[in-house]
Amino acid sequence: MSHQPNLSKNWKKKIHEVIYGTHTPAGKLFDIILLIVIVYSVIIVMLESVPGIDQEYHTFLNVSEWIVTILFTIEYILRIICIRKPKTYIFSFFGMVDLLSTLPKYLSLIFVGSQYLTAFRALRLLRIFRILKLARFVGASNNLARALSASRTKILVFVFFIIVVSVLLGTVMYIIEGPEHGFNSIPHSVYWTIVTLTTVGYGDISPQTPLGQFLASLIMIIGYGIIAVPTGIVSSEYTSAMNKRNTIQDKGRACQTCGTEVLRKDAKFCRICSTELKDD
Amino acid sequence: MSHQPNLSKNWKKKIHEVIYGTHTPAGKLFDIILLIVIVYSVIIVMLESVPGIDQEYHTFLNVSEWIVTILFTIEYILRIICIRKPKTYIFSFFGMVDLLSTLPKYLSLIFVGSQYLTAFRALRLLRIFRILKLARFVGASNNLARALSASRTKILVFVFFIIVVSVLLGTVMYIIEGPEHGFNSIPHSVYWTIVTLTTVGYGDISPQTPLGQFLASLIMIIGYGIIAVPTGIVSSEYTSAMNKRNTIQDKGRACQTCGTEVLRKDAKFCRICSTELKDD
Amino acid sequence: MSHQPNLSKNWKKKIHEVIYGTHTPAGKLFDIILLIVIVYSVIIVMLESVPGIDQEYHTFLNVSEWIVTILFTIEYILRIICIRKPKTYIFSFFGMVDLLSTLPKYLSLIFVGSQYLTAFRALRLLRIFRILKLARFVGASNNLARALSASRTKILVFVFFIIVVSVLLGTVMYIIEGPEHGFNSIPHSVYWTIVTLTTVGYGDISPQTPLGQFLASLIMIIGYGIIAVPTGIVSSEYTSAMNKRNTIQDKGRACQTCGTEVLRKDAKFCRICSTELKDD
Amino acid sequence: MSHQPNLSKNWKKKIHEVIYGTHTPAGKLFDIILLIVIVYSVIIVMLESVPGIDQEYHTFLNVSEWIVTILFTIEYILRIICIRKPKTYIFSFFGMVDLLSTLPKYLSLIFVGSQYLTAFRALRLLRIFRILKLARFVGASNNLARALSASRTKILVFVFFIIVVSVLLGTVMYIIEGPEHGFNSIPHSVYWTIVTLTTVGYGDISPQTPLGQFLASLIMIIGYGIIAVPTGIVSSEYTSAMNKRNTIQDKGRACQTCGTEVLRKDAKFCRICSTELKDD
Repeated sequence: MSHQPNLSKNWKKKIHEVIYGTHTPAGKLFDIILLIVIVYSVIIVMLESVPGIDQEYHTFLNVSEWIVTILFTIEYILRIICIRKPKTYIFSFFGMVDLLSTLPKYLSLIFVGSQYLTAFRALRLLRIFRILKLARFVGASNNLARALSASRTKILVFVFFIIVVSVLLGTVMYIIEGPEHGFNSIPHSVYWTIVTLTTVGYGDISPQTPLGQFLASLIMIIGYGIIAVPTGIVSSEYTSAMNKRNTIQDKGRACQTCGTEVLRKDAKFCRICSTELKDD
Repeated sequence: MSHQPNLSKNWKKKIHEVIYGTHTPAGKLFDIILLIVIVYSVIIVMLESVPGIDQEYHTFLNVSEWIVTILFTIEYILRIICIRKPKTYIFSFFGMVDLLSTLPKYLSLIFVGSQYLTAFRALRLLRIFRILKLARFVGASNNLARALSASRTKILVFVFFIIVVSVLLGTVMYIIEGPEHGFNSIPHSVYWTIVTLTTVGYGDISPQTPLGQFLASLIMIIGYGIIAVPTGIVSSEYTSAMNKRNTIQDKGRACQTCGTEVLRKDAKFCRICSTELKDD
Repeated sequence: MSHQPNLSKNWKKKIHEVIYGTHTPAGKLFDIILLIVIVYSVIIVMLESVPGIDQEYHTFLNVSEWIVTILFTIEYILRIICIRKPKTYIFSFFGMVDLLSTLPKYLSLIFVGSQYLTAFRALRLLRIFRILKLARFVGASNNLARALSASRTKILVFVFFIIVVSVLLGTVMYIIEGPEHGFNSIPHSVYWTIVTLTTVGYGDISPQTPLGQFLASLIMIIGYGIIAVPTGIVSSEYTSAMNKRNTIQDKGRACQTCGTEVLRKDAKFCRICSTELKDD
Repeated sequence: MSHQPNLSKNWKKKIHEVIYGTHTPAGKLFDIILLIVIVYSVIIVMLESVPGIDQEYHTFLNVSEWIVTILFTIEYILRIICIRKPKTYIFSFFGMVDLLSTLPKYLSLIFVGSQYLTAFRALRLLRIFRILKLARFVGASNNLARALSASRTKILVFVFFIIVVSVLLGTVMYIIEGPEHGFNSIPHSVYWTIVTLTTVGYGDISPQTPLGQFLASLIMIIGYGIIAVPTGIVSSEYTSAMNKRNTIQDKGRACQTCGTEVLRKDAKFCRICSTELKDD
């Protein structure tokens, strides 16, 4: 009876191929269906929150929700079963997301309101990047990711700076305008400053006194100048990330002796081992 | 009587030259008159929708509309008659636009309200790019087009990412603020998130609770950082598109003796081995 | 008595030096006083329009206005007298501005309301760039001017594109939302589209229907992407303008035979006359 | 008794190490505690301004405030005592900030309202950049600082230009719209123009007349184009600052035989003449 475990292994392997793989026709089909179900479920959750629609189609939406949730639960269990190291999956980003997109519906049986958390299954949409693992898509997001990762520290320094500036300017505006013009408290005033600095400008609170309007004008011009900083950073880093890739891709020569990649077009000798380089 | 078809052919050829050509004086005149009529008709359609103006000048506007529509219809028919392959024109972008800019007025006889669709003839304004086929205009838009096309995938990835983030943050804001503060439903809340992330900030809905305002501040700062990404991408691609064009224009020559690439257009001798360069 | 015209000539020359010159102590003093008077007069005009302030200090403001106007008139006459070709000055940009900053006050004796046009003397503030003709200031604005001039055509193409898009989207929003939700007419709707596309977002009009809000979201994301285009263009052109200047400034070698500037660091022979280049 | 001053000197030296140093464990601990106290005190000041919270926890917040103020006072005195040249510290940026973050609380005993100035101790948060003197943080902000400093003049020229444009457009809008549509005075109108040009768009004032809305649309499109300028400047300068650093790090070596600049750090042989490169 040594056949049994082997068969089970094959069965697991096949499911693994369908669920995790993206190269076989069955795997592709699975991914496309999964995407459609995810989009469908996100739309259902959103519509459920619209009073008019929910009243009329409550049963349909609720049943749809339960069907999707059960499908996702089955998928989640299958994913755990057919993988070799279930723990790596469970504690990975997508593992957590997959769990979070099924749990809230079950929790809604106990806690009212928690069903809205099912909207977190929108995060599952990010799977699209995994599924569409086409060269250009990955290339595009990789380049983006590299640029963003390179400018992470600088952006953090910048965000920190913005917050300190907002606290200061918010306080000054609170002293100038005061609660009688809608600047009820310093945190509220800091909120207004961020709304202004980022050029969002809701207008739910706006300065009424001439001095407040003057300071607000200054804050806007500062914000206008500041908007340039993160853009400049990402722009530079992205250009540099792009250039790096180009440099590597455009090269076609390597030293025949030591294998070092030739980086300069005009090089005649290897910079590492001095072997004369021959043109291809 | 073999003269007849030949004469008709000449007649067609002449019209073709006037309508499609931009080099003969008659062709240029036609294009300029066409542009003026297009601008005029767009203004008429817009004014027709202003209650005060429509009441007073209704007959004038309506008659103008009909004259323009008939002129456009004649032009459309002539375009089909005088071209060799009418199908390519009819199903081309400008062919569709030309049809769409005459049809709605006729349809308005049957369906009330459809006359506003005549505003689609604003699309005909895009003909200006065709008419002003001057080197620099085309150069400018070509460069732009190349940069935009190169960054298409990245922008799509980015837009997709924005939508997923908006759905998530919109749901969280819906849970925090709720319908009593104007966040009536998740779709409405997602709409608010997009309004905020893009720094538009209408202020028709704005967070009222301290927690909501805190999260809104975070969303704004995120949006502020995110604004940098598409700018960085287009900026880089545009620079790279511009560099490529410059490189292509300056390049093309190499020294016959040492093979060094000639980098300057005005170079007469190789900068490495002093061999005289010959023009191709 | 041939002395008289000569003396008058000297007198004119001296005034010319003081008014137009920026290098003599008297010329510098004149420029600084002029700037202060300009700033003072702009502030006076602005304060005059504030109801509360005008009521209390009407006489003071009015007298101040008249004194400044008379001073500017004298300056304008002197500028015409002491220059060789008065016509070139009168029809130059600054000549027109100087005239426009004195005329309105005189006109206010005849037409009520025209005194606000005196605010146009704010344009005289642009003289600051002339006065502060320091290398770095000119360098900075020259570089800017070069970048803006190089991207002029592209920005125009872009602005034209924005307007066509706004007319189209504005019409669609007018059809969707209609006058009952504040989209009174197509021009009004186009105005709203521009407010949204540019991420200004006043919120005086905002979409009320779900479909309108969905389209508005799309417009915002488009606007968010579009904001990247002019930035990318100016960014690239500015970088290229800066690089050009750097290339010229960083060079230190020229061919000893024909004087051609050496543009490539690795050049050993002049690319124009093949003379061997010697390192300094 | 010559031991006494020496001991006192040692005592001062130790405190100096703890307060100013960041390399000893005690110094690090001190910095971390300091940061926590600063953040805590900023939060306290902010909460104190919220009416609901202040009423309930007034005593707690006030006592917390006093404890923090006394701690900061002790720290300030210690900083002056243990440094060699107290004047340099007192009149340095951080010296002023440290004083300003203790004084207002004492002043609040005399002047009501001045306690809000304690929010200025948010400026002490900037110490974080000093404390986290890690290479990458400093590198990041140094690069930023260099780019901002290089574009300082250009940004100033730009801000000046914006202000002149705002005064002019503000006046025109005041003449068009007038006080009956919320444009009460020219300064108010200039404030509106800045709100619009910077794409903040509160909507507290918005044009009502068709002409006003047309001009506003123009201002927005101008503002949209203008937003590109500072971004372009910072972007370019940042790229150039980044390139310079890269160049400086990679440079410094040249081939002793042919003088070719060594471009790669890992190069051991000249890429032009194969001479072995010696490290400096």
